[in-house]
Amino acid sequence: MNNEEKLKFIKQHIGAYPDFPKKGILFRDIFGALTNEQCCQYLKALLLHNIREKYPNVELIVGLESRGFLFNLMLASELGIGCAAIRKKGKLPGECLSMEYSLEYGVDIFEMQKSAVKPGQKVLIIDDLLATGGSLEAAYKLVRKAGGDVVGCLVIMEMKFLEGRKKLPQTKVHSLIEY
Amino acid sequence: MNNEEKLKFIKQHIGAYPDFPKKGILFRDIFGALTNEQCCQYLKALLLHNIREKYPNVELIVGLESRGFLFNLMLASELGIGCAAIRKKGKLPGECLSMEYSLEYGVDIFEMQKSAVKPGQKVLIIDDLLATGGSLEAAYKLVRKAGGDVVGCLVIMEMKFLEGRKKLPQTKVHSLIEY
Repeated sequence: MNNEEKLKFIKQHIGAYPDFPKKGILFRDIFGALTNEQCCQYLKALLLHNIREKYPNVELIVGLESRGFLFNLMLASELGIGCAAIRKKGKLPGECLSMEYSLEYGVDIFEMQKSAVKPGQKVLIIDDLLATGGSLEAAYKLVRKAGGDVVGCLVIMEMKFLEGRKKLPQTKVHSLIEY
Repeated sequence: MNNEEKLKFIKQHIGAYPDFPKKGILFRDIFGALTNEQCCQYLKALLLHNIREKYPNVELIVGLESRGFLFNLMLASELGIGCAAIRKKGKLPGECLSMEYSLEYGVDIFEMQKSAVKPGQKVLIIDDLLATGGSLEAAYKLVRKAGGDVVGCLVIMEMKFLEGRKKLPQTKVHSLIEY
């Protein structure tokens, strides 16, 4: 199976749930695909292919809580590099850097351990979904604040119509699947 | 490096934070190890070694939100099987099964998608930590409720003195590192 066929296969297995988590949102569910063993293998292969092609110099994978964690250790262990986590405020121990981001109502705060990123380290940010771009924008700022060099953001699914990538003009953004 | 040396290496890189998330708790931080590229590779190798030896017939890896997600897709893609997620209530779309579990104050609810586990499927539950055992016990009950056959629970770190494994008498429990 070539890469295009693998992508098509994964796309067929991603669930679509209208009005979740609230009315008007069509939720794309990556977990629906992951119970299928072929989807797991294809997804890993496609992510690695993309990273080796587009970000060959990456030195650290940063994953966003919690679905980004599905990918960061898997990819780091395969690429021979380390990984780190961005989590909601209060969940990481030790000295943390923080970054506010806007939700529909109010704000939330992301944190990352200060020791997670070395100054100048080439960082790839990973998550399952790019929607409005608010969380990836905050993640980008957080890695920059830590002194990291963001080589790009890689997501499985992108909601193109929400134009979230406009919030990330300073870095490359790639998605495997567009809706 | 043999397996014992790999384990020792990982253990040296796991952070220890007194009084986190609250007074009296010594928090063991797996993320402290994951920024190290060797820890990522050793951890993956040790987990795979343990699964192939102790649970050779496993058919699905179920990871607990959110640190269990670090491992479930990585292991599933390597073993040629699928994976699934147990999350806090309200985060998974579609028809879900739920299971209450006790916290120090009050209760919380785990959910799993009903379609995640096939009846009779051999399931390995994975998480980073076994402490009091409350969340793994709820996860075990949830997979059983879905008709799954739990072949075991595998964790990175076990707080032996909390005797959490006493809550899981019906299944095998393995940990890589004991405290």
